[in-house]
Amino acid sequence: MNTGHHEASWRLPESDPHAHVDLGHHVRLARIAERGTFDSLFLADGPQLWNSVGQRPSGALEPLTLLTALATATEHIGLIATASTSYNSPYNLARRFASLDIVSGGRAGWNIVTTAGREAARNFGLDEEPAHAERYARAAEFVEVSRKLWDSWEDDAVVADKEAGVWGDERRIHPPRHRGTYFGVEGALNVPRGPQGHPLLVQAGSSEDGKAFAARYAEAVFTAQQTLADAQAFYADLKSRTAAAGRDPDHVKVLPGIVPVLGSTEAEAREAERVLEEHIVHRHAVERLESLLQLAPGTLELDAPLPAGLPTEDAVEGAKSRYTLVVELARRERLTVRQLIGRLGGGRGHFTLAGTPEQVADTIETWFTRGAADGFNIMPAVLPSGLDAFVDHVVPILRARGLFRTEYGPRRTLRERYGLPRPANQYTAALV
Amino acid sequence: MNTGHHEASWRLPESDPHAHVDLGHHVRLARIAERGTFDSLFLADGPQLWNSVGQRPSGALEPLTLLTALATATEHIGLIATASTSYNSPYNLARRFASLDIVSGGRAGWNIVTTAGREAARNFGLDEEPAHAERYARAAEFVEVSRKLWDSWEDDAVVADKEAGVWGDERRIHPPRHRGTYFGVEGALNVPRGPQGHPLLVQAGSSEDGKAFAARYAEAVFTAQQTLADAQAFYADLKSRTAAAGRDPDHVKVLPGIVPVLGSTEAEAREAERVLEEHIVHRHAVERLESLLQLAPGTLELDAPLPAGLPTEDAVEGAKSRYTLVVELARRERLTVRQLIGRLGGGRGHFTLAGTPEQVADTIETWFTRGAADGFNIMPAVLPSGLDAFVDHVVPILRARGLFRTEYGPRRTLRERYGLPRPANQYTAALV
Repeated sequence: MNTGHHEASWRLPESDPHAHVDLGHHVRLARIAERGTFDSLFLADGPQLWNSVGQRPSGALEPLTLLTALATATEHIGLIATASTSYNSPYNLARRFASLDIVSGGRAGWNIVTTAGREAARNFGLDEEPAHAERYARAAEFVEVSRKLWDSWEDDAVVADKEAGVWGDERRIHPPRHRGTYFGVEGALNVPRGPQGHPLLVQAGSSEDGKAFAARYAEAVFTAQQTLADAQAFYADLKSRTAAAGRDPDHVKVLPGIVPVLGSTEAEAREAERVLEEHIVHRHAVERLESLLQLAPGTLELDAPLPAGLPTEDAVEGAKSRYTLVVELARRERLTVRQLIGRLGGGRGHFTLAGTPEQVADTIETWFTRGAADGFNIMPAVLPSGLDAFVDHVVPILRARGLFRTEYGPRRTLRERYGLPRPANQYTAALV
Repeated sequence: MNTGHHEASWRLPESDPHAHVDLGHHVRLARIAERGTFDSLFLADGPQLWNSVGQRPSGALEPLTLLTALATATEHIGLIATASTSYNSPYNLARRFASLDIVSGGRAGWNIVTTAGREAARNFGLDEEPAHAERYARAAEFVEVSRKLWDSWEDDAVVADKEAGVWGDERRIHPPRHRGTYFGVEGALNVPRGPQGHPLLVQAGSSEDGKAFAARYAEAVFTAQQTLADAQAFYADLKSRTAAAGRDPDHVKVLPGIVPVLGSTEAEAREAERVLEEHIVHRHAVERLESLLQLAPGTLELDAPLPAGLPTEDAVEGAKSRYTLVVELARRERLTVRQLIGRLGGGRGHFTLAGTPEQVADTIETWFTRGAADGFNIMPAVLPSGLDAFVDHVVPILRARGLFRTEYGPRRTLRERYGLPRPANQYTAALV
């Protein structure tokens, strides 16, 4: 959504319909975010072309490629790329994240996804996506192997003794010799350990499997939450699961997505929201909703509510938590299909906040101070203007209230910004 | 070999033993090459850590990552990354090359390799490398699928009609629906067709399988040739095979590697070469040679010739053409193991040219004008100083003789620089 997180944003006069494949556009966004002293940029992704070419900008530059290009155009901001554990090999992917971490001076993050949907599966020789639980089992092994690879060089493995002709100390190189259920990885990585040791590990699924995975591995969790109460419950649940998994709950940061639509008055913000909704092509949006809800085409009617008797999340093999969020949103607010599409069009399930900068800052403060969030994934409805507006008008309020940094300061790596430790090397530790 | 193509270059006082993972070092090299109006940068690679950590700088930034970072630091130069068809998926790799092509404004090239050696195989769940012929069969299917993916968007697939709410024309999107021996790839790529249509396709194996593959697919071939006669024979053979495959022989460029070692006098160049040889650690070099020749450790003696009765290339499943080159070099010049190591240490089988700038320019002119080369892969023994010396002292001579460009001029893409056409889209053509 590189003209913005609202699906119709590309149709506005200000938007460039080719922005999503324009490096210059992304450089502009990254520099605005650095002006706002944001922690990081986040790129969602999946290895398939969604069936939306007719409707809106489709496809995307491969995220690690784009973030590598942005690494050279920025100095401070973290670079978080989504990559799939179902359709990559650990050796290649671990190396790519280690390389980005080195090239960016320790700013790499990996949003770990298992990739729902048969479209992706069929691009990799499978007929159907693997079952949800199996995708998560593979993801867990993928992360374990990746951590072995990132640790396969101790930090001081390179001695660089020119006189003696000895470059590295082979005793400090540790081949994983991994033979598991899904992967066999024998040798050490072919790139030294990066500035962060491991890239920041991020996760975004909120299903049961997803939360269990996050409790074990994630250092930051992106989540879609529509109400303060839901966000608080999710936050408390995830922190307690993380503690139960034997980890410090402060070492998983909970980051709900919010979609700000700003105006100098509330009425102006509502009008901007209305203009965006007007640009939604409902025929496409209905098809997409039917696909998400696993309904036959033609089931939904625009001015009726969702049909009764939809299956529960347990019966869904795709994007479980998104499914539940949409069904519950419609039920809780008694929305028609048209109204539901309006709500989803803005943030695809994320919390849309239309209002003045003060109002948006108030909500952020409330969520932040009342146990609903450690931070936020800011997803402006329209880009770059929505990001500019947020940085120019909301960030100063948050800074004035002492809620947000005024400059980057001496912390250099993404982990340091998130207040996370640099991981100990599992092999070095074993020798002590 | 980022302190230079001589294996001992890292031990020289001028060399930074961490240069290979230092983006700044690579940016310097790229900018020197642009000052010399070179066509392209080329990065060799393999998905394994060679057993050489004790001996010399090991590991490397992942090539597509590094070249993406260099794309933003340069304007003109082509960016050629090595990537393996044995240990990647077409959907992911085709997308990464398309993304680099877009980000760099049409400067991406892919050096297609099948990756010899069990070390790599064991990083991807296999016990042994697939047989040579099977690796090439997979490579051919990989390239066929990749071309379908790069063509899956017609150049004018995006209509971007804001008024009508229509972004792309779905009739101009062509899912490959490929079901082959090695790969199943159903859907269209999730990035539009790049400036070059396809990245430049490069190949470097000179075995029978390798030459057959090059004749079908390659637009540039890197090759190691030790003598003018051998280079001429290879050149004529490859051009005629390309014609026999139904392609224009001008559309495959033959680029031998040369390793210049420059001095203001021939004696000075020889001395520089001698100093480098002195820094070779022979114990490691012998082990490496034994591994290449598939001999038991301890077989070779430093001051004896290679043993008689070595198997022919047919019996070797690894890097066939390199095997033959080494064995024939030793035989032709009656070298001892120590002498052979001295020759290989400089260029690992490539043609080392120690001499004055005039002498080096003379050899280049001879090879270029007498049917041995369309261009050269310049592999300085020491970097960056050797590249600086080549650009400052050899390039001006070649320019004065009218053999080389003096500025980049209006051609923008790597294909245009190589004098190669932009590929027609196989699906667009089918509609005409």
